[in-house]
Amino acid sequence: MLPAALTDPAAAIAERLTARGQTLAVAESSAGGLISAALLAVPGASAYFRGGFVIYTLDGVKEQLVGVPPLPAGVRSASEPFAGWLACSVAAKLGADWGLGETGAAGPSGNPYGDPAGHAWLAVRRPGGEVLTRHLLTGRADREQNMESFAAGGLALLLDALS
Amino acid sequence: MLPAALTDPAAAIAERLTARGQTLAVAESSAGGLISAALLAVPGASAYFRGGFVIYTLDGVKEQLVGVPPLPAGVRSASEPFAGWLACSVAAKLGADWGLGETGAAGPSGNPYGDPAGHAWLAVRRPGGEVLTRHLLTGRADREQNMESFAAGGLALLLDALS
Repeated sequence: MLPAALTDPAAAIAERLTARGQTLAVAESSAGGLISAALLAVPGASAYFRGGFVIYTLDGVKEQLVGVPPLPAGVRSASEPFAGWLACSVAAKLGADWGLGETGAAGPSGNPYGDPAGHAWLAVRRPGGEVLTRHLLTGRADREQNMESFAAGGLALLLDALS
Repeated sequence: MLPAALTDPAAAIAERLTARGQTLAVAESSAGGLISAALLAVPGASAYFRGGFVIYTLDGVKEQLVGVPPLPAGVRSASEPFAGWLACSVAAKLGADWGLGETGAAGPSGNPYGDPAGHAWLAVRRPGGEVLTRHLLTGRADREQNMESFAAGGLALLLDALS
């Protein structure tokens, strides 16, 4: 059911994390759970998958990621620093070596900040603490297609960082 | 991309929660994130979706659902009381009216407790605190198909409870 654009990178990520003996945690927003679902479709995922958060409200962020350093003042969702904060916070919260964060606007309309639908920021927190980010702009308003693109983008960024 | 077996009940759930002005939180395990993804594929989900947890290790449970009443001693994963505890705990943790919990063995092999692949327990916590549970046994070892069946089962139980 899940497309190869998600399951292929997930299988490659699984292989690399297993070979390294390292763990991963995920905090996704507009991808809606598809990043975790792709990773967990690979048998044996419990060896490296520490857990995932699907965060859809700023209140929810506070309740789900309680106990990590607070979100810096002025940082809004669907931004580069928010994606980086998600990646670092979820790794810290769940004691994972790697963290993956995603935040964006899936559509069909844009978000209150003026970002168009199809816009997302992705971030990977490496084991040493370095954070890599990537911006996506799909140019589409289709919500489900954007969710899939955001999930594929997050998995691709993580796979690049592991390669 | 997501099958109608997931998006149809998700749309009906969205309509009912919106009409009631009530909120929902999800804690899923073997469904891997597909329950949240189906719910979030419906535009406007931020009105009722408080957040989701994808929990794959017992350590992860402790770290993600910190601050709720602890899991009763002797309760193991992929059991009816564990599904009910997930539904109640995630609703309490995220301040949601409704909680949905899922736990099972997606396969291809069974779990360490002797449950076969394709076995799952689903639970819904109603606003007043009542808990409904349902058991699934798909008879299949296909991991992705089981993930989808578990997600569809969870959404169906919630939709029944809302109807």
